[in-house]
Parts: sequence; structure tokens; C-alpha cells
Amino acid sequence: MKISEVKNVLIIGLGLLGGSYAKKLTAEGFKVKVITLNREDIDYAVKEGFIVEGSTEVDETLISEAQLIIFALYPHTFIEWVEQYGSLIKSGTVVTDVTGVKGCVVEKIQNMLPAGVEFISAHPMAGKDTSGVQNSDPEIFKKANYIVVPTNRNTPDAIRLCCELGRTLGFADISSLNVRQHDEMIAFLSQLTHCIAVSLMCANGDPNLVRYTGDSFRELTRIANINDEMWSELFLSNREALLSEMDGYRKAFDRLYDTIKNNDRETMREMMRLSSARRKTFNEGEKLI
Amino acid sequence: MKISEVKNVLIIGLGLLGGSYAKKLTAEGFKVKVITLNREDIDYAVKEGFIVEGSTEVDETLISEAQLIIFALYPHTFIEWVEQYGSLIKSGTVVTDVTGVKGCVVEKIQNMLPAGVEFISAHPMAGKDTSGVQNSDPEIFKKANYIVVPTNRNTPDAIRLCCELGRTLGFADISSLNVRQHDEMIAFLSQLTHCIAVSLMCANGDPNLVRYTGDSFRELTRIANINDEMWSELFLSNREALLSEMDGYRKAFDRLYDTIKNNDRETMREMMRLSSARRKTFNEGEKLI
Repeated sequence: MKISEVKNVLIIGLGLLGGSYAKKLTAEGFKVKVITLNREDIDYAVKEGFIVEGSTEVDETLISEAQLIIFALYPHTFIEWVEQYGSLIKSGTVVTDVTGVKGCVVEKIQNMLPAGVEFISAHPMAGKDTSGVQNSDPEIFKKANYIVVPTNRNTPDAIRLCCELGRTLGFADISSLNVRQHDEMIAFLSQLTHCIAVSLMCANGDPNLVRYTGDSFRELTRIANINDEMWSELFLSNREALLSEMDGYRKAFDRLYDTIKNNDRETMREMMRLSSARRKTFNEGEKLI
Repeated sequence: MKISEVKNVLIIGLGLLGGSYAKKLTAEGFKVKVITLNREDIDYAVKEGFIVEGSTEVDETLISEAQLIIFALYPHTFIEWVEQYGSLIKSGTVVTDVTGVKGCVVEKIQNMLPAGVEFISAHPMAGKDTSGVQNSDPEIFKKANYIVVPTNRNTPDAIRLCCELGRTLGFADISSLNVRQHDEMIAFLSQLTHCIAVSLMCANGDPNLVRYTGDSFRELTRIANINDEMWSELFLSNREALLSEMDGYRKAFDRLYDTIKNNDRETMREMMRLSSARRKTFNEGEKLI
């Protein structure tokens, strides 16, 4: 199936990401319907014109009409949903997701789905420090990365469809990692950075910081305002990889600490030059994307 | 002396900050001259019209004409300059600075200057990840904080003048801290955040991070491209305070690490809620500034 052959899309879970997908896909001409928990969210989305209709029930007609189903749920809710209702999905449907961790999800889901239903996993690296469909906005995809996470059970056809979905959503770059690579990468790039921001904010209770701050603290702690339900689940679902990245980072931090303690200016400057060189490489890479 | 009585300003050191001061003060009608190391920087600034003239020599006329002298040098260069040439500054002149650490600077400078010359220290909390006068831009002051750092040897008159200078430069908020408070605050808000960014970048050499990154890593490591000469000096000049803030942060980070290791979801969520509450307080504070 090509993206041009898809007409009916079903989004399950209408939050910040589900809503942003719905807005962009509707704008691109797809017929988007949803299944989600709250009636008000459906009413809002219908009124705003970015879904056709929706249900708070597990509606078999909505499920069987859809050629493409996108799950935008928390990892454990996603698994529970497919456990209970996965058998309702008809053969030929392609299923994808937005889940932030993959090791605890992808194999399970692929095992549970009926024959002829293919699950191709993806991680849109986009978000906001607010949640809910009211804050959804496909603009967040514009400078963001989209990672497709296939297994050896995926067909080239579904992988290509998933890449096309990323492009249709307007992501700046589409790439592919396997499950283990994805979870290690995300442990470092996303989970560790949230750990750092939370720790930094927990280390100092002075309510006047804002009067003395520069940009660096402001930027580092933007993500310290964190959805504790979602992120505790993400951290614990990727525990081994995250602990390993935290260890690696702590080693570097301790090395820098020692250079300061020992007045070892040369090693300190070496670390700073390494850091600068790597960040410059990163900047160059951004220009290419 | 009020800021309205100041006509001639001398800036010593024409880099990113010196240049940004020069641009804004010239735009506000002051007659700005400079003493700086490189002839090309002077020529550039004269050509661009944001200084009247400048010298690469320690020009006695420039020094004696100025009612207000602003030092925009590295801490040790600032101290060496005043040691060698401070006696040339005439009585009645007010001297200020932009130095990022104060404990190693303020008392020394106040002791060295001739009678009748008052040094009132200040820290503009603004910067960029580039350096040099060619990158100077007074726009960086607009959302930034300006901290005046008086000692018990300062007069109310000079403190007020220094606050007025901050306002004239266009800073969003002007506040005041004593030397010890300033150095502790800066150790936490600015130096620790740079330590974190450098450590994070040193912990992972994968050149493809940019393809998988989200905003959080991008924001946390913007400052990882760091001027190693300046920052190693700033870190070592504020060693005790910085080590202490690194210890405090490391304790919080280790606590979060343990919650993940022990699957202690409740303590983890408590830390995330504390972090979120503090960051919301910070956001509220920003709206007031």
C-alpha cells in the first residue's frame, strides 16, 4: 500500500501528538477519525474541523474502515488496548505508533496482532512542554526528526509507507534504527536530558533564580516541567539503557569535576575543545537536514 | 553622577560584550571610545559607526577624558591592566565591568584603584555562542538580567549610576547581589549548566546524533560549543562555589538514578512534580520581568 492509496486513517488516543497528526493529515486530504477516552476532546476536534468523527467506545466500524491505524497512547495503554481489541483489526490494515520506547512494545504488539495486520513502529521526535489535544500543533514536526523502527518481520512495503507518513506529516528528516539502537539513542538524547533537567531543578529551591538567570539555565530546564505519569513510565520501560547512559554521562561529569578540583586547566580545556568540536559537527549536520 | 551627566564612555576590551555595549551606548547618544588589543577591531567599529575612536595603546588622553570606564576583559587581564595602569585613571571617574566572577576580582580592583576612583561591579547575564566584536549585538540584552554587585565600599551614588547603565543598555531586569551571593548564584545558574553541557557532549561521540535528536538535547548542548580559554578561567576563579554546586546537583542526579535502578516510581514522580512546580514558578517569574 502506498500513502496515496490510504484514505481512511484512524487515530487511537487524541492527545498532543494524536491531535497534531490529525490536524496535519486532515489538511493533507485524509479522512481522519479517532477513538479516544474523552467526549470533549472529540467534540473539540470535530468543531475545529480536524477530524471527521470519533468515538469513546471501541467502535468496530471505525476500526474496520481504516486502512492505517495510528496509536498515540502511553506504552502500557497501547499494549493493553491491542491485547483486548487487537483481534478487531482486519487483515490488510497497517498499524503504526508514536511510542517513545520500543523494546518493551514492538515485539509484543507484533506478536499480538492478527495475521495480515502489519505493525511498523515509528517515533516522531517532537513534543511540547504542554499536553492535550488543545495544544496540538503540526508545526512541531517541521524541524523535527522521525525515526522508523522496523524489525525483521516488517515488509519493505510497510516500511516505505511509514516513511511516506513521516514525510506527509512534514518532518525534516526521516531515518531508521533497529529497536535496540533506537532505545539506546533515545536513552541518551531524550531520557538522559530529561533526567538532567529534573535533577538540576531539584538541586536548588531558590524562588529568585529567574532574576539572575542567563539563557543557559532557562534552556536546560525548559523540559523540567515534565509529565510525571508519562515520563516515569518511559524511564522504567527503558531502564537498562537509561541507567547505562546515565553512567556514561556521570563519568564525564566526574572527570570534569576532578579537573576543577585539581586545578587541571589543560585537561579541562581539552574536554571543552572536544565538546565544542562535537557540537560544531552537530550544527553542521543540522544545516544538511 | 547621574547617567545623564555622563558624556564620554571608555570601553576597555572590544569583544562580544564590549562591542554590544558600544553599539547600544552610541545609539543612546554617548561618545564611546575604546582601548583594545587589535587595530582591526577598532577600524571595524569606527567604520560601522559605533565608536568615535580607539587606541591599541594605553592612551592617557582617552583615559582622562572618560567619566565612565567599562572593563570588558577576562578576569586576570582586568586585574593585570589595573595593576599596571590603574594609576592613570583620574579622580571622579566611575569604573565598572562585565566580569563573570566577582570574588577574585572586586576587592582586588577596589584596593588597587587610586583615591577618588570608584569601582562598582556588574554582571550582564547575556552572551552568545560566538565571540568577537563582529558578532556583538545589543539585542542580547533585551530579555536578559543585569546584576549589580556592590560592596560596603560603594556609594549609593555609584550603585545608582550602575543600575541606570543597566537600564540604558536595555536589560529586562536589574537586581543586586553581594559578592558571595553572586558567585554562588552564578556557579549554579551559569557555570554548572556549562559543565553539564560539556559533560553531555563528551559522553557520546556518535556523529549521527543530529538525525535522531529532539529539541531537548539540541537546547541542552547549545552552550557545549564553549570558549575554552575564557570558561576554564571562570571555572577556576570560582572553584569552591562551583564544586559545591556540582556536588549538590550530583546528589539530586544520583537520587533520580537510584529511583530508576530500584523501580521506585513514586519517589521518581515526586522529584518530577517538584521539578515541574519549580519550573512553573520560574515561568511565572519570567512573565513579571
